[in-house]
Amino acid sequence: MSELPADFSKSTCPLPLPHIDRIVMGHGSGGKMSHDLIARLFLPPLDNPILRAGDDSGVVDISTGTRLAISTDAHVVSPLFFPGGDIGRLAVCGTVNDVAMMGATPLYLTAGFILEEGLEVSLLQKVVASMQTAAREAGVYIVAGDTKVVQKGNADGLYITTSGVGTIPPGVDIGGAKAKPGDVIILSGPIGDHGIAVLVARGELGFEADVKSDVAPLNHLVEAMLNVSRGSIHVLRDPTRGGLATTLNEIAHQSQVGIVIHEQNIPVRPAVAAVCEILGFDPLYVANEGKLVAIVDRGIADQILSSIRNTHYGEEAVVIGEVQDAPRSRVLMKTTIGSTRVVDMLSGEMLPRIC
Amino acid sequence: MSELPADFSKSTCPLPLPHIDRIVMGHGSGGKMSHDLIARLFLPPLDNPILRAGDDSGVVDISTGTRLAISTDAHVVSPLFFPGGDIGRLAVCGTVNDVAMMGATPLYLTAGFILEEGLEVSLLQKVVASMQTAAREAGVYIVAGDTKVVQKGNADGLYITTSGVGTIPPGVDIGGAKAKPGDVIILSGPIGDHGIAVLVARGELGFEADVKSDVAPLNHLVEAMLNVSRGSIHVLRDPTRGGLATTLNEIAHQSQVGIVIHEQNIPVRPAVAAVCEILGFDPLYVANEGKLVAIVDRGIADQILSSIRNTHYGEEAVVIGEVQDAPRSRVLMKTTIGSTRVVDMLSGEMLPRIC
Repeated sequence: MSELPADFSKSTCPLPLPHIDRIVMGHGSGGKMSHDLIARLFLPPLDNPILRAGDDSGVVDISTGTRLAISTDAHVVSPLFFPGGDIGRLAVCGTVNDVAMMGATPLYLTAGFILEEGLEVSLLQKVVASMQTAAREAGVYIVAGDTKVVQKGNADGLYITTSGVGTIPPGVDIGGAKAKPGDVIILSGPIGDHGIAVLVARGELGFEADVKSDVAPLNHLVEAMLNVSRGSIHVLRDPTRGGLATTLNEIAHQSQVGIVIHEQNIPVRPAVAAVCEILGFDPLYVANEGKLVAIVDRGIADQILSSIRNTHYGEEAVVIGEVQDAPRSRVLMKTTIGSTRVVDMLSGEMLPRIC
Repeated sequence: MSELPADFSKSTCPLPLPHIDRIVMGHGSGGKMSHDLIARLFLPPLDNPILRAGDDSGVVDISTGTRLAISTDAHVVSPLFFPGGDIGRLAVCGTVNDVAMMGATPLYLTAGFILEEGLEVSLLQKVVASMQTAAREAGVYIVAGDTKVVQKGNADGLYITTSGVGTIPPGVDIGGAKAKPGDVIILSGPIGDHGIAVLVARGELGFEADVKSDVAPLNHLVEAMLNVSRGSIHVLRDPTRGGLATTLNEIAHQSQVGIVIHEQNIPVRPAVAAVCEILGFDPLYVANEGKLVAIVDRGIADQILSSIRNTHYGEEAVVIGEVQDAPRSRVLMKTTIGSTRVVDMLSGEMLPRIC
């Protein structure tokens, strides 16, 4: 969840939403409208320092100084199966990654299923098998579950909400508010694969494209980075809904820094770039499910980059930019033609039901 | 989740479900069909000792001997508001209670929202405010959340999946498999209020009835019991979907004991009894959301009963039966007319979308 503007964080009762009275698809975009809904509607009544931190997981202290990262993600992707993955793999990886983005070791997941009456059991079996394959790869256990059934027409096949718990090793101090001027920004690989793969899988485009979702558990990649240095990794975040642009804006805002990225350094696979060009999409705003952004001390950036490149899902990692003092809360991009442009957060809805 | 028959627990890949190929409403009943679905479809691929224990929360050990209870519940209740509560209060209490049923102190919740396009924002605000009221009453924090929006027609207003984490105090050893012959069975109050309140709220019955849902957080009640004795409380469980009959059957099966209850001791409010009589429902199978069953050492049962009666939601607690050696895995009821009958688990679906 996003950080809260100061005027809202102090309120203890829900505020009116003067400009909207009904939920629209854009409220699920992960971009500005989602942030607005969260800041205005969810945070005021539920306000507490853990939620307000606005990171991918809540970080809590339990007895004897053990820190836990706790996260949740509802998954409503359509279609349920797409090249490179399915809703089951997505549900496991999405939550594993949110926990890992706090530098935590994900250990346990829960899964709540909402099934539509009439769902084929064989399809559900495939989804559950896929969850187990992903859980095994990540090294986590699904330790609790719940199943509800709703009447035909009241869900779209099935929805899965996963939650995850992990322990944060001593010395790790990662969060969206911890980027510092001078830090280096690393991206673990090409962007836009997941969003485009799901879009193409819907079969509504009138053309085919060979794009696979990147959906993957990133906890082993994070572990490799932490083996290089625990204290020098300041921010980790996976650019899912809203894409890289939205994630970088969240960090710039939370850390009150300026972020500069270099267009020529940002990897986009040719097939993804081609689909984006046809449809008028900017890959900076397209969802990823197996990529992360790491903001790290300049002094150790090369070593951390090498450690990422040595892992399964990080072979194509690159440095894409740096953190500056100014302009605060802004993301700038140096374009391939030499100009500089502001990169804003996703404003409305680009691709509904992407995760 | 229910315990797994031995032949399934050893399998590592999904088994075919020869007698069903599509999900039907009964798979969400909490009764036999739900147990069957879980045992055949979910447990084989996801199998691990924590899930297999079949309790209301998974119990895990993290570093330095700290034990956590972790649970999840998807909430799809219809209508969203009903006398005594709403989906928000239900989502918080349901998960708080599942964590408390392991003798744990619930600390942190997560909430995943699936919102239907077109949902009134004022309605969502009421639900979130209700969640916060319930969370405050229980003394828990909502530390992570997620919001997805699906197109109109792909959800019924909103669904909320909550997960919870709590710490288990040293000396507590509670679980569905721990009932012992000689133990006393305590019920914390009258049964059937929630199910009947929701049913009446649907307005389809052609009559009115003054029944309020009992939806409430039971963690303070559990705390009061544990203050009397940690080691003498063997089983705690809240009889939600499937009702008291299903819960007692689960325990009889998990503990491999016989359970005897006395019909005359089981409290049912007159209005609930009246609606059940008109509709041909047995209150033993109707859902509760603010009641628990405690199975405790005979020697300390009176003290524990007193401690429950001194709490807000336990004033009407009573002893309803006892645990025996035989018949194993069976629940028997001594009826008011002096006969004995077998009380089976709920078999199909009685009231869909009850929680």
